[in-house]
Amino acid sequence: MREVAVIGVGMNRWGELWKKSHRQIWTEAAIEAIEDAGVDHVDAMYVGCMSGGLFVGQEHLGPLLAEQLGMGPIPGTRVESACASGGLAFRQAYLAVASGEHDIVIASGVEKMTDVDGGAATYALSTAADQEYECYQGITFPGLYAMMASVHMAKYGTTRKQLADVAVKNHYNGARNPLAQFQGEITADQVMSSVLVADPLRILDCSPITDGAAAVILVPLDYAKKMNADMVVRVAASAHATDAIALHDREDLAWLASTQVAAEKAYKQAGITSKDLSFCEVHDCFTIAEVMVSEALGLFDRGSGGPAASSGATALGGEIPINPSGGLKSKGHPVGATGVAQIREVMMQLRGKAGDRQVKNAHRALTQNMGGTGASTVVHIFERA
Amino acid sequence: MREVAVIGVGMNRWGELWKKSHRQIWTEAAIEAIEDAGVDHVDAMYVGCMSGGLFVGQEHLGPLLAEQLGMGPIPGTRVESACASGGLAFRQAYLAVASGEHDIVIASGVEKMTDVDGGAATYALSTAADQEYECYQGITFPGLYAMMASVHMAKYGTTRKQLADVAVKNHYNGARNPLAQFQGEITADQVMSSVLVADPLRILDCSPITDGAAAVILVPLDYAKKMNADMVVRVAASAHATDAIALHDREDLAWLASTQVAAEKAYKQAGITSKDLSFCEVHDCFTIAEVMVSEALGLFDRGSGGPAASSGATALGGEIPINPSGGLKSKGHPVGATGVAQIREVMMQLRGKAGDRQVKNAHRALTQNMGGTGASTVVHIFERA
Repeated sequence: MREVAVIGVGMNRWGELWKKSHRQIWTEAAIEAIEDAGVDHVDAMYVGCMSGGLFVGQEHLGPLLAEQLGMGPIPGTRVESACASGGLAFRQAYLAVASGEHDIVIASGVEKMTDVDGGAATYALSTAADQEYECYQGITFPGLYAMMASVHMAKYGTTRKQLADVAVKNHYNGARNPLAQFQGEITADQVMSSVLVADPLRILDCSPITDGAAAVILVPLDYAKKMNADMVVRVAASAHATDAIALHDREDLAWLASTQVAAEKAYKQAGITSKDLSFCEVHDCFTIAEVMVSEALGLFDRGSGGPAASSGATALGGEIPINPSGGLKSKGHPVGATGVAQIREVMMQLRGKAGDRQVKNAHRALTQNMGGTGASTVVHIFERA
Repeated sequence: MREVAVIGVGMNRWGELWKKSHRQIWTEAAIEAIEDAGVDHVDAMYVGCMSGGLFVGQEHLGPLLAEQLGMGPIPGTRVESACASGGLAFRQAYLAVASGEHDIVIASGVEKMTDVDGGAATYALSTAADQEYECYQGITFPGLYAMMASVHMAKYGTTRKQLADVAVKNHYNGARNPLAQFQGEITADQVMSSVLVADPLRILDCSPITDGAAAVILVPLDYAKKMNADMVVRVAASAHATDAIALHDREDLAWLASTQVAAEKAYKQAGITSKDLSFCEVHDCFTIAEVMVSEALGLFDRGSGGPAASSGATALGGEIPINPSGGLKSKGHPVGATGVAQIREVMMQLRGKAGDRQVKNAHRALTQNMGGTGASTVVHIFERA
């Protein structure tokens, strides 16, 4: 397979974008990525979107968005894996370039979630869980992650305060990201006294409902070098793994097996260990998710993700910064776009263009994008070539 | 890129499968394909599904279906391109094998459409059109294809009887397919006196609402040869193209540009012309669609698809048989599964196992799977290796 590089990124300010349509949000990010890459066309388009059908009544995004770019009849492919749709769209784009099928490919993600009311959004998100065995019993995603949090707390002594510290850290970072939905810092006391959603998770443990898009441009590595871009960023690894979709079919509710499997594959492919990473962008849909992901990636021992979150190890300037972008928690979580926005953040950091949230000497980073309660995980590793 | 072969197929009897769940329908087809291929595992799974969200409240099919096979944590990827979802899932599986990323891959499609009422199904299908500019005006798919038919009739003199002859031929073939939803022959008079849906299209011009699944197994061509299968079928070409999603953005309502582009790419890749095909499986969601597709594939001159349909040229035993399976019209149209079922039919024919609908001396065939009113098209060519 050919080696692949990322050469351009685009993303709009995320939030409640009531004045912009689904396709408009996507097109802004896509055109920015194309301009940033300095290419005059793309050969194919991939888009991650979780539920165009339930959120905006629009499936069939491949041709619609290719046409928005004015680039039909190029192939346009929509990929879905719940909240990992963006990461998986990137992976399919990576395979399309690596295979030799296409040379210049745009990988993107979009979701417009605020055109429906909160109940409808909660229902749409629930379709990422097992509809027949979980959702029909009435549970929603905060409830599912609350069960995982409760088990993690009981098993490892993870505390309420440690979960809050994840949110505090991510809002601190997000306050330094001009494209984040929430740009205000918060305190642990605020998190712990915020409205209870599903015990032990409170509203400030939860990522928000968001409209937004992100896009990146992929080319073969040798093309990127010839283009003489400021800096060439290589895709060092791409891995994808699944787990049982329903919590009751898992061996351990306090462990994210698909993340472990995907991370191990990715480290092997890149020829590195977790110690060799400058930072990570991970899927903190809830605070407990970041704690569990940090363990499954091997950044911390099993059960010690909570203390690590409170220690400062994952903060900017810490041992292994996690979510310098602000993460899903503060940057926002338009589900189909999240995985691609993680890659956009990696590019900003590796280019040294991340402003007040810059990770010092960033040279290699990992993205972890997860669907449902971890039934699907996509992991990528990027490094300066 | 590596050359790719198809070595196993599975499909259930299609219809209104009220006693079976979405996942159960898929699993039946997938396990049949795995057994038919004689493999003991798959390395990755791709599934085409148009709207799990709107039809059954279940997105995130990748991990769910990988788990149904008992093969987690293998990567499971859902691909969507409206009614071309199955063909596009096959294409992504093809790229995954061709690239060298995976060796044994299952490509599949599924849709369960009868768990919702007719109005909800019509709404779900409408999300394949341009929601903002077409559907919000109240039009649905029969209406869109009726406009295309009207233009084709006005421009080329295509007749009501010629459209009916497409349905008659496809029901004749479907009556010889034990897995088809409708296995009864019909007459042109019956078509022309059936209930008017959207002038000039009547109910017997329309493919039905269907529950069903199909699956095929792909491996590198050299693996297939080593496995000493009865017969090796090579993927000679894979092509994907898009067009404007809304009819009003097209230059010609009587022409399927994405099919033309994809077919030209595919012929070039396979090093053949349309004259070298033994038969075709095409996307006859409405009778007019088959007429227009037969022209865009270059099987007949522009505007002469209608007379060709009445001439017997596309019947079993004709010059270029179209839809020996019965097509969407008679076999049924579970939208995400249709593109994969076309490939299953090709395999049955190339193996010489198609029973009473066998195309004589079948050695090379084309599948054409289309989304919406032709905004996306996936074309594949298969040949005995």
